[in-house]
Parts: sequence; C-alpha cells; structure tokens
Amino acid sequence: MNDPRAVAAGSLPFIPMEAGRLRERFAQVRALTLELARPLSAEDSCVQSMPDASPVKWHLAHTTWFFETFILEKVEPGFAPFMPAFRVLFNSYYNGIGEKHPRPQRGMLTRPALADVLDYRSNVNQRIEAAFRSQAGNAEFLTLVELGLNHEQQHQELIVTDVKHLLSLNPLQPAYREPRQHPPAAASPLRWIAFEGGVMEVGHGADGFCFDNELPRHRQYLQSFALASRPVTNGEYADFIEDGAYSEPQLWLSEGWDWVRSNALAHPLYWKAADGGWSEFTLGGVDPVDPHSPVAHLSYFEADAYARWAGARLPSEAEWEHAAAGLPVEGNFLAPERLRPSGVAGDGLVQMYGDVWEWTQSAYGPYPGFRSAQGALGEYNGKFMVNQYVLRGGSCATPAGHVRASYRNFFPAGARWQFSGLRLARDGIVTLLEKPSAASRKNEA
Amino acid sequence: MNDPRAVAAGSLPFIPMEAGRLRERFAQVRALTLELARPLSAEDSCVQSMPDASPVKWHLAHTTWFFETFILEKVEPGFAPFMPAFRVLFNSYYNGIGEKHPRPQRGMLTRPALADVLDYRSNVNQRIEAAFRSQAGNAEFLTLVELGLNHEQQHQELIVTDVKHLLSLNPLQPAYREPRQHPPAAASPLRWIAFEGGVMEVGHGADGFCFDNELPRHRQYLQSFALASRPVTNGEYADFIEDGAYSEPQLWLSEGWDWVRSNALAHPLYWKAADGGWSEFTLGGVDPVDPHSPVAHLSYFEADAYARWAGARLPSEAEWEHAAAGLPVEGNFLAPERLRPSGVAGDGLVQMYGDVWEWTQSAYGPYPGFRSAQGALGEYNGKFMVNQYVLRGGSCATPAGHVRASYRNFFPAGARWQFSGLRLARDGIVTLLEKPSAASRKNEA
Amino acid sequence: MNDPRAVAAGSLPFIPMEAGRLRERFAQVRALTLELARPLSAEDSCVQSMPDASPVKWHLAHTTWFFETFILEKVEPGFAPFMPAFRVLFNSYYNGIGEKHPRPQRGMLTRPALADVLDYRSNVNQRIEAAFRSQAGNAEFLTLVELGLNHEQQHQELIVTDVKHLLSLNPLQPAYREPRQHPPAAASPLRWIAFEGGVMEVGHGADGFCFDNELPRHRQYLQSFALASRPVTNGEYADFIEDGAYSEPQLWLSEGWDWVRSNALAHPLYWKAADGGWSEFTLGGVDPVDPHSPVAHLSYFEADAYARWAGARLPSEAEWEHAAAGLPVEGNFLAPERLRPSGVAGDGLVQMYGDVWEWTQSAYGPYPGFRSAQGALGEYNGKFMVNQYVLRGGSCATPAGHVRASYRNFFPAGARWQFSGLRLARDGIVTLLEKPSAASRKNEA
Amino acid sequence: MNDPRAVAAGSLPFIPMEAGRLRERFAQVRALTLELARPLSAEDSCVQSMPDASPVKWHLAHTTWFFETFILEKVEPGFAPFMPAFRVLFNSYYNGIGEKHPRPQRGMLTRPALADVLDYRSNVNQRIEAAFRSQAGNAEFLTLVELGLNHEQQHQELIVTDVKHLLSLNPLQPAYREPRQHPPAAASPLRWIAFEGGVMEVGHGADGFCFDNELPRHRQYLQSFALASRPVTNGEYADFIEDGAYSEPQLWLSEGWDWVRSNALAHPLYWKAADGGWSEFTLGGVDPVDPHSPVAHLSYFEADAYARWAGARLPSEAEWEHAAAGLPVEGNFLAPERLRPSGVAGDGLVQMYGDVWEWTQSAYGPYPGFRSAQGALGEYNGKFMVNQYVLRGGSCATPAGHVRASYRNFFPAGARWQFSGLRLARDGIVTLLEKPSAASRKNEA
Repeated sequence: MNDPRAVAAGSLPFIPMEAGRLRERFAQVRALTLELARPLSAEDSCVQSMPDASPVKWHLAHTTWFFETFILEKVEPGFAPFMPAFRVLFNSYYNGIGEKHPRPQRGMLTRPALADVLDYRSNVNQRIEAAFRSQAGNAEFLTLVELGLNHEQQHQELIVTDVKHLLSLNPLQPAYREPRQHPPAAASPLRWIAFEGGVMEVGHGADGFCFDNELPRHRQYLQSFALASRPVTNGEYADFIEDGAYSEPQLWLSEGWDWVRSNALAHPLYWKAADGGWSEFTLGGVDPVDPHSPVAHLSYFEADAYARWAGARLPSEAEWEHAAAGLPVEGNFLAPERLRPSGVAGDGLVQMYGDVWEWTQSAYGPYPGFRSAQGALGEYNGKFMVNQYVLRGGSCATPAGHVRASYRNFFPAGARWQFSGLRLARDGIVTLLEKPSAASRKNEA
Repeated sequence: MNDPRAVAAGSLPFIPMEAGRLRERFAQVRALTLELARPLSAEDSCVQSMPDASPVKWHLAHTTWFFETFILEKVEPGFAPFMPAFRVLFNSYYNGIGEKHPRPQRGMLTRPALADVLDYRSNVNQRIEAAFRSQAGNAEFLTLVELGLNHEQQHQELIVTDVKHLLSLNPLQPAYREPRQHPPAAASPLRWIAFEGGVMEVGHGADGFCFDNELPRHRQYLQSFALASRPVTNGEYADFIEDGAYSEPQLWLSEGWDWVRSNALAHPLYWKAADGGWSEFTLGGVDPVDPHSPVAHLSYFEADAYARWAGARLPSEAEWEHAAAGLPVEGNFLAPERLRPSGVAGDGLVQMYGDVWEWTQSAYGPYPGFRSAQGALGEYNGKFMVNQYVLRGGSCATPAGHVRASYRNFFPAGARWQFSGLRLARDGIVTLLEKPSAASRKNEA
Repeated sequence: MNDPRAVAAGSLPFIPMEAGRLRERFAQVRALTLELARPLSAEDSCVQSMPDASPVKWHLAHTTWFFETFILEKVEPGFAPFMPAFRVLFNSYYNGIGEKHPRPQRGMLTRPALADVLDYRSNVNQRIEAAFRSQAGNAEFLTLVELGLNHEQQHQELIVTDVKHLLSLNPLQPAYREPRQHPPAAASPLRWIAFEGGVMEVGHGADGFCFDNELPRHRQYLQSFALASRPVTNGEYADFIEDGAYSEPQLWLSEGWDWVRSNALAHPLYWKAADGGWSEFTLGGVDPVDPHSPVAHLSYFEADAYARWAGARLPSEAEWEHAAAGLPVEGNFLAPERLRPSGVAGDGLVQMYGDVWEWTQSAYGPYPGFRSAQGALGEYNGKFMVNQYVLRGGSCATPAGHVRASYRNFFPAGARWQFSGLRLARDGIVTLLEKPSAASRKNEA
Repeated sequence: MNDPRAVAAGSLPFIPMEAGRLRERFAQVRALTLELARPLSAEDSCVQSMPDASPVKWHLAHTTWFFETFILEKVEPGFAPFMPAFRVLFNSYYNGIGEKHPRPQRGMLTRPALADVLDYRSNVNQRIEAAFRSQAGNAEFLTLVELGLNHEQQHQELIVTDVKHLLSLNPLQPAYREPRQHPPAAASPLRWIAFEGGVMEVGHGADGFCFDNELPRHRQYLQSFALASRPVTNGEYADFIEDGAYSEPQLWLSEGWDWVRSNALAHPLYWKAADGGWSEFTLGGVDPVDPHSPVAHLSYFEADAYARWAGARLPSEAEWEHAAAGLPVEGNFLAPERLRPSGVAGDGLVQMYGDVWEWTQSAYGPYPGFRSAQGALGEYNGKFMVNQYVLRGGSCATPAGHVRASYRNFFPAGARWQFSGLRLARDGIVTLLEKPSAASRKNEA
C-alpha cells in the first residue's frame, strides 16, 4: 500500500483531455505558476507566515514533486529522482508515499535554494514533455497529468493568499505588485432570486475533469429557497460592524463567539480603522476599503453571524450548485495584475463565479456512494471530511478554468486568509425586493 | 431582548401534555435526579473533572434554575428569586439572561453547599407544584414545564457520564454504586438490513414534545443503503486495535490522526490493557471488557476509522431516522442499578435505542426552515450548529421516554465521555450476510 | 535508595527537643491544623483552585502521611499502613518513596472522604503517641518528629493561603471566618537604618531545629547598606499604581513586564477598584484596603518594580538576616481570628517578623558546603534551588515559633498567593530621613 | 526619558581606547560580521528558527541600528536616518527608544532584502568613519563606539549559534562551511586545583572596556574550594547518559526533571544515537562525537545534574573569576574555519577561556552598588536580572578579545543552543587526584 505506483489512475473519475491540448495546457499552467512567483525574492519565497500557509518555494517544489512522484516514477524507465531527499521534503500529506517533512517546519527549508527548486521545475517539465512523446496514448498518464495540473492550480491560489498573509505581517506593508488605480466599483441593489423545490441532481455530471469529492452525481431533495442576487458588500459589512455585531453574543454561534473573544476580533482580516472609515491591506498595498466590492477574508463564523443579523442564512451547497448550474463559468478570476474582488452592476444572479469564495452552511462530507481513489492519491480529498465547511464559486485568486458548478472548496470555520465572502439565502420563495440592512432590521425589532 | 419573559412559549413547537399527567411526570423526573445524586457525597458532587463536564451539584442547581428563571419568574406574582446570586451562578450559556459564571470554573463553587442546593430544589419544586394549581389551563406554562423536564433529563444523562469521568480519575477507582454480577452478554451475528432509496420525510412529525432542532419535518431524498443489524461490539473493536489501527494513519481522517497522536491514544476511553486482554472502568468499578456488548466511549474519529477499516461507513442521520421510524422506542435505558451497555441476541434491526448513542456521519446543522424559539430559550440548540456531529438513539444513561426517532444529540468529534458507539452502514442494497472483520478485510487486500 | 528507612536522621542537622516537651508540642501543632480546617466544609476542603495550591483535605492527609511514612514505618514493629493506597495518594514529591499522584490532580480526590482523612489523622496521632512511650530515648525518632512538626507548620500556612485563593474565585466572595471590626492601622514614617559592611556570619548557628537549607553557617562579606524601618504599605503601593507603574515598561524587569502584559495586571492579587479607591478580598470577606498596613500578595516582579520606582532596591537575604539577627522573633503571626497584615507605629526596625514575607533580591541556592540529608528526606529542599527567590521573616499566616532569622522561604518570581510584600534597601549608609514617594522621585527626575 | 540622546556616555563605566586604534578596530569588527554572513544565502539569512534566535539579516541590521541610533543621531548635524522604518524594525528591546517589532516576528521580515541591509551597513560604516574625523577628541563618542563594537561581537556569537540551530532543523543537515578533517582531540586526566578561602575582590578592576554588570568591583568572602583542571568531556557525559541519568529523577532539580520529561530529552542538543555511539550536527555537517572534546549545548539543568551525579557541584561565578584572575585570556575562540570545541592536553587549569561557556551555579543578579547607565542604554543588561544563570569564559563562537575574567554571560536554565558546557567544583581543599566517573561513584554507593 506504500507504493505510489499502486495509484490506479483508472480509478480517477474523469476522461482526460486529448493529448495535444493537454500538453499545451501543461505548458501554460506551469508557466503561470512561475509568473506568480516572479515578483518575489528568494527571501519572500522562503518564509512561512503561519502553520496554515506554506512558503512559495515549497509550493513551487511540491507541485513539481507531484508530477515526479505520481507520474514520472510510473512511466520513466529506470526512473531516478532529481534529488532523493525531495521525496520527503516536498510531500504534503500523503502517508501512502512514506515520511513527510512536518508542515509547520516548511519555513525552515532555506536549502534547497530557490534557484535549485527552479531547476527542479525545469527538469521535471522536460521529463514530462518527453513522456508526452511515448505516453500520448496512455490514458492513465493523461489522467494523472490533468490531475496534476488541477492540483497545481489549487497551489496557484494558495501562493496568492499565502503571500498576502506574509506581506501583511511586515510593518513596511509592502506591495506584491505595482499598485495601480482601480475604477470605483459599483454594486446593484440586492434582489432575491427564487428557486422552486423538488428532487434535483447534484455533483459532477459531465465527462471532463473533476475531483473525487464531486462524485457521484446523485439526487437530493431541495425545499424552495431564494438566493441573493450578489455577494454581501464591504459597505453592508461595515454596517454590521457599526451596529455592534462584534460585541453582541446572540448574533454568533457559540463557538464563533468564543473565537471572536479569544482573538479579540472586531473586523475582517486585513482591515484597519482609518480616519473614521476603513482601509485594508491588499496585494497592491494599503487602500481604502471599497464599499461596493464583495467583502472578503471572512471566517465561516463571521459569514454566519452576518447572515443572522441580516435576517437571512447561508445557502446550502446543493442550493448554490442548483442555482449556478446553468450559468457560464465567468467572472473575476486570477489575473496577476488585479488580485482583488471588484463590484459590478448587473441584473439577475451575478458574481456567482470569481471575486470571493462563498461560504455555504454545509459541512464538508462525502456524497452518498463516495469512493476515494486507490493508493496514495486516495488521500487527496477524503481525509479532510470533518470540521470543515464548503465554499463555492472561486475567487479573484482562482485560476480561470479551474472551477465549475460542482466544485467544492473547504476550510475550517475559523479560516480567513482566503478570499472568502458570502451570499445570503432564505427559505421559501421571496418575491419582494428586500434589503437586509441594519436599518430595516432595526425597524423590525 | 434581555428579558427572559420575552420567551414566547407559543413559539415552542409542540403541544404539551395534559396538566394532570404533566404534574405527575414533574414529580417523577425531579425525584429521579435526586436518586441519581444519592450515592454521591458532597465532595463527589462538588468537583469538576474537566471543562466539558460539570459538578453534580451544578447540575442539580442549574436544572432548578431553569424552572425558576423561565417559568416562576413569569407566573409568580411578586416573584422573588430563592437567592439572587444563583441567577448568575447557575446560568449555563443563556446570554439573553445576562451574566454567567464561567464554565471551567464551575468546580470552584464549594459554596453554596450541596445542602443549600437541595433546599433550592425543594423550594422550586413546591413553587412549581403551587403554580400548577393556578396555571393548569395556561398552555405556555405547561409547554415550558414540559421543556424543563426534557432539559432535566438531558442533565440526568450528564450526571451519569460526568460522575463516571470524575471517579475514573481517582487512583482508588471507586464505584458509583455497589458492583454486581452481570450475566455474560450475547451478540447475534451482524447482518445487513437493506433500505430502498427515494424521497422520505425526516424530522418530528407528531404533536408531542420535541426540541426545535427536530423541526420542521421535511423531505429528503435518500439513496438506497444498508444498515448493520446491531452496533459494533467490544470484541470487534478489540480486533481493530489488534490489527494495528491506532498506528495506521491511512485509516483515519487527517484531523483524527492528529488527535490520536497528540493524545497518544491506543484504545477507547476507560479501557486498560490487562493480562493480554482488556479491562474497563465502569460505574460499578473495574471489570473485564465484555466482548459481546456494544463498544462505548468512542470519539467520532474512532467510529469513523473503525467503519473505514471494516469496509463500511457511518450512516447519515436521515438514514438512521428512516430505519428507526417504525420501531418501538425500547431498549437498555437509564436504570441506576445497571448503567452499562449490554449485548442481546436478536433478529432484525436490534438495539437502535438505548445501550450506546450511535455516531452518524452527519454534521449537526439546521433543518431547512429551522427557526429558533424567540428570546433566551432560542439559545437552547441553534447556537451549537457548527463543528459537532449528530448521534442517534440514546444510551444506557438516557432516561426512558426521553428519546424518539427524530431526536438529535450532538457532540464535537473528539468527545468520548458519553456512552457513544457506532453502527455500520453501506451504500446500495447488500443482500449477503457479511462480517466486516479484520479477517475478511485482509482477504480483500 | 528507594527505602525511606534509609533516611539517616543522624544526617539531619539539629539536636531535637527533649521528649516530654516535644510530645506536648506534637499535640498542639496537630490540633492547630484541625482548628484551621474547622470552618471549612467537606466541599471547601476537597477542591483545588490552581495547580500551585492543594486542597485542605490533601494537606490534612499529606502531613499525616509524613509521620506515617518517615517515622512509623521505621519504629513500629510489624508496621502496616492505615491504607496502602495513601502511600501514593499523599506523597507530595518524594521520588525516593516511589510513585506519586500528579499534583494538578489533587482536587480529583473526592475519595477518601474528609471524614476518612480525619480518621487517618487520629489513627496516626495515636500511633505516634504510642511510639513516644518506647522511643523517648531514640534521638532519630525525636529528630524526625520535630521535622514532621515543622513540616506540618509549613502546611498550616498553605492551608490559609490556599483557602484564601479558593474562596476568592467564588462570585459569592464568602468569608473563611466571621468578619470582624479591625481597628484602623497606623504606620510610622519610613526611616533608613544603616548597617556597616564587613565579614558577617550567615546561616543557622544554634542547636535547635532548622532546615538543611539554612546550613552551614558561613562567612559572607557585606557592603554597607541601609534597610527601611518598616515594610512598604498599601498606601505607598497605591501611589505607585497611581503613578502609572503598570504601564511603564522601564520600571520592570524584562520578564516582569511580559508577565504584567500577558496577565493583563494592574494591581496586587485580591485588590479590586472600588469607588475611586481600592477594596480587597480577605479571609473575613471584602474590605476596603487599609493604607497603613503592609502591602501583600505581590510577586517578586512587583516588589522589584516598586523598589526601582522608589529609587531603592530589594535587600539581599544576607542583609536581611544580618539586620534581623539580634531581634526578638515576635510579630503578627498566624492567629485564626485575624489572618491579615496590620500596621503598627514604632521606632527603629519594626515588623521584621510576621505580617508579610519580604521578598529579597536573592535567588534561592545552596550555601557553600550545603549537603542534603540522605535518602528520600534529602528531597525536602535542595531540589527546588533554581528559578526561585528567597523571602524572609514570616507572615500573618506563619505559625508562631516556626521562623527565625536564618529561615529561608522561597517562591517563583510570579507567585502572589502568599502574604508576600517587601521592605526597601539601599546601598551605602544613608543617614537622612527619606520618603521614597512618587513625589520625591518626581522632584529628582 | 524617551530621547536616546539622553544617554550620558559619561555614565558608561570605562575609559575608551585611543581614537586611532578604535577606528582600526571598528573596521575589523564590522568586517568579521560580514565574513560570518558570507557563506549564507539571502534565504539562510532571513529565517528565524525559534523565538530565542534571530535571523542573520536581523543581526546585521540591528548591530548597524545600534551605531546609527546611539551615536550618529547624537553627533551628525542634521541627522537623517537611512530609513525611518528601521528605527522600529531593528530595535531589539530598548523601550526607551520607542516601539519595537515583536521578537518572535523577526523572521517575517523578507523586506528589506538582505542587499538593502548590506547597503545600510555600508552607509553607516561610512558615516561612522566620517564621524571619527570630527569626534576623535570626543570621549563620549569613543565610548559609545567601543560599546557598539562589543555589542556587535555579542551578535557575532549569536550569528554562529542561531545559524547552527536553523541548519540543524533542515532534514538535509547542510553544513555552514566546507567540512574538513579535524585531528582527534586529547584530554588530560581531570585533576582538582585547590583555592584557599578568604576575602577576595570580584568585578572588573582595570580601565578598559567592560559592561555595567561587571561593576562595581567589590569584596566577597569565598570559602575554600577546588576546581576541576578542565571542562567535562563528551566521553564523560556519554557515561552519565549510559548510567541512566535521563531517567533518574533524583539526579535532577525538580524543575529540571519536569523539563526533561516534558521535552522527552535523552542527550545534549544536536546529538543523535548512531551505531551504538553518538554523532552530532556541527557547523561542518554531521560528525561522530569526539570523546575528548568538552561537552557542549547543555542546559543549566543538565550541567547541574551531571555535577550531582559526579559527586561534585557547579562553581559559583566568584569562584570561577577568582581562579581565572591570573590567567592569560587565550583559548579556542571564534575562527570561521573551526567553530567547534576541541580537546587539549595540558597541566594545571586549562581551557578556562574559549571552547565552551561554563555554567556556574550563580543566578544572574546585580553586584552590590550596581547602577545602570542612564537613558535607553541602561536597558542593556540590568533588566534581565531574574531567572537567568551566569556562564563564564567564552566559547569557540566568542570573538577573540571579547571576554575577560570578569565577563558575565547569562541565559535561562533551559537554554541549550549556545556552546555551553561545564567545569566541576568541590567544597574545601581536595588534594588527591580523583576522577568523578560513574565507576568511582558506583564504588562509593
């Protein structure tokens, strides 16, 4: 069971891309990772800012390790690793592969140097390119390459969020990239979009790539519900703060209230009070908070408390998926020169994709009939199915083309360093226009 | 919002018992609590063994506080509290009531003395009895009394489990009650009981008492599944240990494995290795582990790992409820002279009620359309709906008459001091007799 | 080495009292312990308020264990312990005796009951009385009994301070004994008493009882110094607070400042701000702080910071001992009806004994030539000689007759639950009357 | 008081070097720091391996900040800082200077880049050189420069020990410098050197540089004592381990035993069991432990336990200083190509200087009459005088010329990442040759 070659790619649940297109995609994805790392010095790339985050150098190496360990080791005759020690150093959590370097110690790895890791990337790139020549007809090879690219895209998002966290701790408040002017955002009035209940299908239903946790597609019964037309904005969230929410226990889950008090919290991560208003640390430096952009960097506890305050609730993940099912997968995704949520005007259901991950009320668990892949790759998703909550839709740090309606992201309830926000939901069918503001709430009380 | 009298009992979701029957029940329930406390000295009743547990004296006072605060304050003309300080001392977690004594400090309350708390109980008993004379036609009064009795029954179970934990820490390993001989238990072979999928109804559907978290009754779509005919036994769990489960990371959820290692665990709570076998601390002292009794004192992590090892999974709470729906609510419930799970022989689905709470794979969350009661009583259940998992069926410490098919108990994934075990489930319809033992699993591997 | 009978009492460093007088003293000391416990219920006696403190029941049992283990086991023919399990339960820290119950778990011992421990005390009292008949000429027996009585007196002081801590955590703020009126205290102006330098002798120099850590008497060279005529008062300490001392890092040792901030401290233990002044929790309930009484319940860090603020320093233990050498051992010692420091008017060096233990600047270490006793009793003092600071003079909780000029008490720098205060010292010979007040200090700045 | 210019250098307690010599020395010391940093990459220089250690880049910047803040700000007309933000970033602990970056966050400073810090060094070097032209006759300037150089030398030692700790955490076990062959070390038999008691003088007694904590020179009375001729060797320490010392509580101070168990320790820092013997991580990579070299990387607890096991004790700092007084300050000091303790054969008292710092039994405290410098520089030493123990003699990481007989180093009792070892002492005058080995000890038992 400790042999990674025991990974039966046949057990992976999708039909891979055609070889030529995949090879092109391989080049693109691998290049984007390097582009994200380019503004960073070797020092920036080496440091780990908290146990939840990883150094950029580690991301660069681990995504490469994934290709070497799960693919090259299987298809290269006389396989020899680039560096034997990397097998342990850059294993994230695959117990099936053997020993691994402890996660909180990833920042101690000043060696290998960034330059050595970049060499490792080039080397593995070339070997994968070479393998394409002999393995173009090997479905398992193609399947694993496509998995590896989706894996790398997940780490691209983490590079962005981990770097943001690291730089935020520096009193110099340095920018990741040249700050630039952003046009002021707009936000349309919040409307409620109604959905009729009934038996629905949930989970990935097409041939293309998906993760094992999106399967099997299965039936669920949904009650009628309504979804807000857009995410909650910074301005609305500022009203919530203004209304005293961070000192009112009855708005919070019990564990959420403990979390607020033991961390002495009073606003989202990266916000600072400034001249009677709010500023925030962004990847372009410190900026005023834009009231019309979706609020980001909230924990599940904050998203849940906001929804309660607004007289609403978080959607379930099935509700979200049902509502998103017909929409084009378009939005404000990762673009190295932007990297921030933005407001848009628009009718109907907007910003379901991109901008901010939307917390759902659903605990992350297996779908009925869920099966992990065999071998070490079976550890990819299933073993995290406890004490985490599902987020949907992708963010401004998610690579374009990575998410879909059935895509399930998940984090513990206290995590805030992702671009995580929320969209309100309500039971039943609500036909009136309502604005769940502090004002309306006060009138109700 | 801080006025407990704002509790609109009308918002409580059940039709109360008839006054005469309720009055009788009041006397019975209150008497059982005292009977449970009788074997304990003032010292035994005062100490708190861990932050999760409470002293017995605190349970005796808090259940009384509940009647005084939520009922007498509302119905007594010129209400005056027995002791004003008790309002804070014996408030558990109702922020709506005002200040509360910090939970981890409950064991510091050597004053009031046990005798004073017993006086408090008598006093409130008399005042409630008196109120029955004037309020027999007041539905809100009856509703709140019935809620108070169900609340007290929950604390009866906690008295049993908290005392067990406390005494277990004493090197003298004292017995709560006279040890006595128990006939050796029997367990029938595990069979799989099949259930067809489809749209089902879940949640409390009758007029009588239920908690708000059991409502509203609503539709769910269930896939076909099979449930084990009985809970996992001590003997089966010993096989799991014997097979090296506590040192095999791939059997565990990632957080479960961290929990195992950071607590250096190798067996259920209260077990000790003894002469090549296992003994366990019980409320009757130290006994050999009975291989045919249901295994108890497992965390969610352990239950989940066992199920994975056995090639099965935990049931969802909806599956459990659907399977239990038609069964009589009978089983090995709280009896002060027994207080341990026992094995039974039997065909079909047995031991669904009593013996051990059965962990489900379901995170504890709100049902679609869930509404908390208004006022302070709204804090009863809803605010714990994060990072907890649902258990079903009651245990040998649950008072008879307290549970039902729709009853939802919940604890964090690492909690083990309740009588918590598991019953296996499987996807699809399994018709063959199968024993998920280490042996069969090894043959598969 | 694990045999407690290996204790060579001959290695204990004093000549014991005459047998008749010792027997009388045995009765008195054992009776006083019971008198101290009398106002407390079984519940009060069972609970442990923090790891540093012990339950009163444990003190009652442990002091009895000491006589049984170190004396009766040696002199009784066919010795049988009162209860074999007590050997482990009531061992404090003697590794030489074998296993011991973990200190932070002492509060879990609801069994044996208080009544059983009182029986244990009576039983051992009778057996020691009996032993006096046969062993009156056995110097080792007499030596160990006298050691046991001094040991018990140390626990008498801990009973007082541990109970004070426990009751202080109860929101009811209960009194240990009937509160009573205390005449307002007086304090004479602070004067400086000068001492010439030179070679002095330090350490116990007479025949009677002392602990091993007071030996050997040896020479030290002292520089000239001056000592304040009396301890620092509550009123003076309130000036220090008023001057902002708890928010001024430069007044504190670096570790002391971390201690202040991480515990969010702003005043001595047991003080509370009240109506523009200060009140304090005492063993007689909550009282206004008396400005003329010696300040108590300070940590070393607070005592050191006060001295720095006052332009002075803490005395060394040798300075204190040299100054105390000629004085009668009289003062405000333990009296169950008083139990608080009090102010006195008086000329010259006053209140050196009783009232409050006085922190010295001296780390607790071995005197040159120090030898521990052999066997388990050698663990009595020597193994604590790191990261503790010496206090001198006894307090209002120290039994009369227990201390002497050479007596060394010791606690970690952050401990505050003893009656610990300070007396200022200065280098050189200061002949003028000076009041080290905030006012004078500000004039200097 | 917050003005660093308030530093009255006149209050510094030494007469500085002549200006020409000092200028030369400035160039040498500053150059050596760079030489120590040269083998390290920007990544190696950026990471903080534990809160006690600092990144090399931080050391490079902080030593420069010291010259800029305490000297240039005072002597440069129209002073402007190199970078205003550095005033906070590179302040270590001077509350008198204002805010400071939190110590455990020093590793987050990926900006400024190493290159920027090297520019900062050059800039300040040039400005100090320039100041020499105008300030050569300014005693305060010279005094502060000499203090700054001694300060920088302390950080040179920390660069070596902090880098060793960082690299040791890397599974690649990288070497700081090219490993090279070391001739096998020799150690002469341990002899006892006797010293007669009497009144001695302790503290710095000459004109040249010393720290404030070495003053005033004052009298102490010492009892007769004997000192071991050389430090304890690795071979002797291996015997102590072999004898079961890490599992024998009676050899340890009580707090030391807790430290051993809670950290699960069984050997010095950097040792690993290897093929029935021991290997150790060194700055030249992993090597076999040399039995004849002085043992290093011990805590006070380990040094104390070893001495007890050997039937001896640690010397007091006054004893050490008295014994060292007449010896030339020569030994195995910092040489970038060596950086390890080494054994030597020799008669008489050897290796008092260099090789390893020797733990004394003395708590770090103020000498009688101690006065801190005024202003922020007064925070240099005095505020650490609690819960630390004195080490004497310098190590293989101490720059030559930095230590002297009166030099007092200090660390908490659990610190091990310095090159810290021990030399045994005994009471009285011992004339015989004795080897305090396990063998002799067993014969005595």
